[in-house]
Amino acid sequence: MSTRLLLLGAGRSASSLINYLLRYAPLEGWQVTVGDVNPAHLEPVLAAHTEYARAVTFDIQNEARLEELVQEADVVISMLPALFHPVVARMCVQHKRHLATASYVSEAIRELDLDAQQAGITLLMECGLDPGLDHMSAMQVIDDVRARGGRITSFKSYCGGLMAPDSEGDNPWKYKFTWNPRNVVLAGQGTAKYKQNGQLRFIPYQQLFVQTEDITVPEHGLFEGYANRDSLGYRAPYGLEDIPTILRGTLRRPGYCSAWGALVRLGLTDDSGPLGNPATMTWKQLVSSYLPVYPDPQWSVAALTAKHLGLAHNSPEMQRLIWLGLFTDEPVGLANATPAQLLEHLLTRKWQLEPTDRDMIVMQHLFEYELGEELYYRTSSLVVLGDDSTHTAMAKTVGLPLGMAVRRLARGEGQQRGVVIPTQATLYEPILTELAEDYAIRFKEEEHHYGKEMLAGESRK
Amino acid sequence: MSTRLLLLGAGRSASSLINYLLRYAPLEGWQVTVGDVNPAHLEPVLAAHTEYARAVTFDIQNEARLEELVQEADVVISMLPALFHPVVARMCVQHKRHLATASYVSEAIRELDLDAQQAGITLLMECGLDPGLDHMSAMQVIDDVRARGGRITSFKSYCGGLMAPDSEGDNPWKYKFTWNPRNVVLAGQGTAKYKQNGQLRFIPYQQLFVQTEDITVPEHGLFEGYANRDSLGYRAPYGLEDIPTILRGTLRRPGYCSAWGALVRLGLTDDSGPLGNPATMTWKQLVSSYLPVYPDPQWSVAALTAKHLGLAHNSPEMQRLIWLGLFTDEPVGLANATPAQLLEHLLTRKWQLEPTDRDMIVMQHLFEYELGEELYYRTSSLVVLGDDSTHTAMAKTVGLPLGMAVRRLARGEGQQRGVVIPTQATLYEPILTELAEDYAIRFKEEEHHYGKEMLAGESRK
Repeated sequence: MSTRLLLLGAGRSASSLINYLLRYAPLEGWQVTVGDVNPAHLEPVLAAHTEYARAVTFDIQNEARLEELVQEADVVISMLPALFHPVVARMCVQHKRHLATASYVSEAIRELDLDAQQAGITLLMECGLDPGLDHMSAMQVIDDVRARGGRITSFKSYCGGLMAPDSEGDNPWKYKFTWNPRNVVLAGQGTAKYKQNGQLRFIPYQQLFVQTEDITVPEHGLFEGYANRDSLGYRAPYGLEDIPTILRGTLRRPGYCSAWGALVRLGLTDDSGPLGNPATMTWKQLVSSYLPVYPDPQWSVAALTAKHLGLAHNSPEMQRLIWLGLFTDEPVGLANATPAQLLEHLLTRKWQLEPTDRDMIVMQHLFEYELGEELYYRTSSLVVLGDDSTHTAMAKTVGLPLGMAVRRLARGEGQQRGVVIPTQATLYEPILTELAEDYAIRFKEEEHHYGKEMLAGESRK
Repeated sequence: MSTRLLLLGAGRSASSLINYLLRYAPLEGWQVTVGDVNPAHLEPVLAAHTEYARAVTFDIQNEARLEELVQEADVVISMLPALFHPVVARMCVQHKRHLATASYVSEAIRELDLDAQQAGITLLMECGLDPGLDHMSAMQVIDDVRARGGRITSFKSYCGGLMAPDSEGDNPWKYKFTWNPRNVVLAGQGTAKYKQNGQLRFIPYQQLFVQTEDITVPEHGLFEGYANRDSLGYRAPYGLEDIPTILRGTLRRPGYCSAWGALVRLGLTDDSGPLGNPATMTWKQLVSSYLPVYPDPQWSVAALTAKHLGLAHNSPEMQRLIWLGLFTDEPVGLANATPAQLLEHLLTRKWQLEPTDRDMIVMQHLFEYELGEELYYRTSSLVVLGDDSTHTAMAKTVGLPLGMAVRRLARGEGQQRGVVIPTQATLYEPILTELAEDYAIRFKEEEHHYGKEMLAGESRK
C-alpha cells in the first residue's frame, strides 16, 4: 500500500523539498499531493512525475478543503507561513496524521503536545535549516562530547543567509534578500539575552549591531555575528541547563552590522507607527527630517547625516548608506508608512536577487569543553552555495532536512509522539549522513586543546 | 424635575470632580450617583450630602449593572480607564444618555459619532487637562488671533505633571508619579512627528530626550520639553491644517530628560519581552548585565556605566542614576520581567508621592503669528499647585473642567451632538471664565511683536 504525502505551500523555498519528494516517491511508494494557492507553476515541475504526484489548489482560509486534504494523507508537510501551523496541526491531531514543518514550536503548537501523543502522531517541528540543521549538527557534537565524558562550558552558534562571493557584485553590504525582507528589517528589536561566563547578559537594540563578534570560517573568510534575541531558550532542549556561556547569533559580511546600526540610529527601522508622509517625499527629504536643523544650508544631507551619526563622510558606513540611495531625490513611494515599511520598500529593490545570483548559507558552532584536565575548543562549520535564484542554498538547507525527516516518518521510523524537534541521534544521525553523502552538505570540524589559561580573557568586542 | 448624574470610577484623580458635583448638586437640582468598584472610601465624602448623592458598587465587567445605572441617569461621566469608554459610550448611545470623559477620542469612540448624532446625544470627550484644558486655552488664543485677522505660523504646546518646588525634596529628578507610572516609563517609544518651518520632522526614540527645548514659565523658572509622539493630529481639530510649525510636548524639570535618556540608552525602558532574570538579581547585577565586559575587575559598576554611556562619573545624569539605586545590592524584585517592568517597580518606590507632597501642573502654549506687516510672539502659561497628595493639581485640572462641562450639558446648554471635543468658544469660554474666577486657575499671557527678521533662526536644540 502506498503512503500518501501532502505538502501544503509550494513557494520558492520549497523547490528542493519538492525535488526530494519526487526523487523518492517511486522508490518509497509515495503518492505526493502538493497544495498551493496558485499551483500553475508546479505543472512543469510535476509533468514527468504524474504517476505519483499531483498539484491541487489549496487556500488555508478554506478549512473544509484543508480537512479533506488532510484526511486523504498519511503524512502532512507544511511550508506555509508559520502563523498557519496551529490550524494545520489541530487538523492533523484530529485526523491522526503526522505533521512535519521547518518552523519554530510556537505556544499554540506546544499546547497540542498531549493531544498529539494521545492521537499517536508526531508533530515534527523545527526540521529545516535554522531551526533544524542547527539542532542536528549541534546535538551531534554535544552528544559526542558527552559520550567521551566531557563537560561543555561554552556554546555559541551563528547562522546567516548570505550571497556567494561571485554574486555580491558592487553591493557594499554583500547582502540580498533570500528570506522574508520584513524580518530582516525588524531583526533584533527588543533586548537580546544570552549567558556568558555564568552571567546573564543583555544587549539593547541600539547596541546590538555594535557588540558583534568576528567569526572566521575556514576557506570562506571573515564574517561578523550579532546576537539573536533569545539564546537562553536553547539550554533546555539541548540539555545544557547549567552551561556558563551560550549565545546564538546571525552572520553578516564584515561592515554590514556597523552600517545597519547607522540605519537603526537614524530611526529608519522603527515600525511602531506611520509617519504621516506623502508618497512623493524623497529619500533625501525623509532623512533630512530626522536630522537636527543646522543653521548652515551649505551642508549636504549626506554630510549632515555623517555629522549627526559621528561618522566620517567617506566611512564604510556612509558608503553603504549612499549606495542605498538615502540621499537621492527618489520618492519613498509609500504614503503614511512606518520608517521600517519605507526602508523595506527601498531595500526590496536594492537587495533583489538577480536570476543568476547564488546565495550562500553559513553556519558555525563554537564549543569549549573540559575533558579530564584539558580544555578543548571545537568548531563545526557549514557552507552551502545555491545554484541560482530558484535552487537556492536556503531552499536546499531548509527543504532537504525536512524531506529526509518526512521519509523516516513515512517509513514508520522514530517512535517519538507528540511535539518533537530533531535533537535525538536516531533522527539527526541518518539525516546528517544523507546530507553529507548524497548532497555534499557537510559540517567541517576543527578541534584544538589548550591548557586552562589559554581560554581566559575571551570576550565579545 | 431633578437631573440625574452618574459618575463611573472614583479613584484619586476624581476627588476635585466629586467635590464640584457635590457643590452644585443642591444648586442645580442634581441627583448624583457615584459608582466605584470599592465605594467604601466615598462614604465620608458623601456623608454630608446624602439628600442628593449616593455611592453604589459598580464593576465595569458587569454589563447588566452598567445598563441599569445608565438607564437611571440623564448624564453619564466616566473616570474609568480609557479602554472601558467604548463599552460605556455604546450603552449611552443605546439609551440616549449624554456622556462626558477626560480621555482621548479613540477609533472606537469616533465610530460612534453618527449613532450618537442620531440618538440626539453628546459624547463629550477630551474634557480634562491634557486633553481638555489644552484645547480650551489654545483655541481661545487661536480664535482671538483669527478674529483680529492674524495668521498663526507656529504653535507649540507643552504640558507636564510635576512637583511643587517645596515637595521636590532631595530627589534630583524633581519628579514623582502623579499619573500612571507605566505610561511614564514607556513615554515616547516609537517616532515623534511634528512640523517645523513647513517641513515634517521626525525624532526617533533614542534621540527624543536629547532634542529637547528649554521653556521658561514666568515666576516658575526653567523647564525642558520633549516632543510628544504625534503633534500632527492636532492640526485638523484646531483648524491649523497648513500651519508651518506645530509641536506638542511634555515638560520636565531641567536635567530629567538627559538622565532619562541615559536609562533609555542603557536599555532599561524596553518592554518587548521578559529577561529571564531571577527576582533575587540585584540592581547592580542587572545594570552590569548590560555593560560590555571590561578586563579590569577593579572598576565599579557605576564607573563602567558612566564610561559605557560616555558620561563623567559625577555628571548630573550619573547622580540621578545613583540616587535611584541602580548600583546597589537591592534585588530587582520581579522574576522574568521586562526591563520596563523592573524600572517601573523601582521608580514606583523611589518616586512615590508622600501624603504631604504637593504636585504642580504646568502648561505653556507658544504662538507666532503674522498680523499686517508685523510678527507677534505670544505665550499663554498656566501653573496649578496641588493642596496635598489627595487634592492634587492633577485632580483639579482634570476634574474641574470636566465637572463644568457636565454642568452645561446637564443644563441643556450646547446643542452639538455626536462626538465633541471642547474646541468651540461656546463651550470653552464659560469654563475658562469659571476656572479663573472661582478657582484661580488662570492662564497668563505675554505678547511681543517684532520685525520679521527677529524670528528667523529660531530652532530646537
